[in-house]
Amino acid sequence: MAKIDKNRDKEVIVVGLDPGTRFMGFAVLMIKNQQMALLQFGVIHLHKYANHELKLKKVFDKVSNIIDEFSPDEIALEAPFYGKNVQSMLKLGRAQGVAMAAALAKEVPISEYAPKKVKQSVTGNGNASKEQVSHMLQTLLNIKEAPKMFDATDALAVAVCHHFQKNSIVKTSKSWKSFIAENPGRIKG
Amino acid sequence: MAKIDKNRDKEVIVVGLDPGTRFMGFAVLMIKNQQMALLQFGVIHLHKYANHELKLKKVFDKVSNIIDEFSPDEIALEAPFYGKNVQSMLKLGRAQGVAMAAALAKEVPISEYAPKKVKQSVTGNGNASKEQVSHMLQTLLNIKEAPKMFDATDALAVAVCHHFQKNSIVKTSKSWKSFIAENPGRIKG
Repeated sequence: MAKIDKNRDKEVIVVGLDPGTRFMGFAVLMIKNQQMALLQFGVIHLHKYANHELKLKKVFDKVSNIIDEFSPDEIALEAPFYGKNVQSMLKLGRAQGVAMAAALAKEVPISEYAPKKVKQSVTGNGNASKEQVSHMLQTLLNIKEAPKMFDATDALAVAVCHHFQKNSIVKTSKSWKSFIAENPGRIKG
Repeated sequence: MAKIDKNRDKEVIVVGLDPGTRFMGFAVLMIKNQQMALLQFGVIHLHKYANHELKLKKVFDKVSNIIDEFSPDEIALEAPFYGKNVQSMLKLGRAQGVAMAAALAKEVPISEYAPKKVKQSVTGNGNASKEQVSHMLQTLLNIKEAPKMFDATDALAVAVCHHFQKNSIVKTSKSWKSFIAENPGRIKG
């Protein structure tokens, strides 16, 4: 606790994004003195826009607004590289591209993580369920209420994953193993 | 020729884009008194950028610069809806998304046309070869030299297609929904 930390005064803002064709999850994470704090997270609903172009416009505007509001140092993107069919992958690619363009336009560096990598990084298990990821995030960030929308927790998870990857030398105590040790009743299987 | 034309003094600029993962073709078409004139066309080479993010940045910057320079009224996008595999469609979707985001950011309306539709509109044959499309464009626009890069002629073709579609009574389908409706055999799942 009393050790000198070179980064102690450095505040880093990471925005996590999970762009999809029906929802886009977003999360704003602040890291200071190696402590994470959740500033904001949520979901924008895209399915209500009938027009594909309007959906993309909404994604672009939302990401642009988040960048303007929080001036993030980095953006982390949950980016599946495989999908069911070419149609859905083209649509997903467009949503990703539009979100990335908003970041590129404002020169915020982007990092991409596959969903499995995110789960692995956050929970220690690449095959963790969405519920397990959500529980871990609640523990890590002292979130009182269980987040209802998994799309928002996915965005938060990728932001946390990015922070862990960047700081992989300093291993956090909140590993999946310690989570299991601390929460024996909450693990199934 | 001597008929009174309500639009005779109206000048319209259409930018055609053919975003891909290795090249992006672009063309700037001016229409005045129903006469088309080619203002500029070319290709940006993306394969020299090793980094995927850099390629997307380049696409975004180029489209943004074209919009700033020519203030187009409309953007027409050659957009394949179907491809070989999910990987390449995700990449293509990103390139399309980034190009579209540049247009959305500057509030230029976007129209999309499938490659077959472009060929049909320009040459009257949906299965025309690239050489036939190129030859027809040379005739239509009085281009002296044969364009060497087909990616640039594809972009020009989609701009010409857009102009033809806008000026035909029969409204064309360019939405995703109508494409699927019209091409049931090409959709899997």
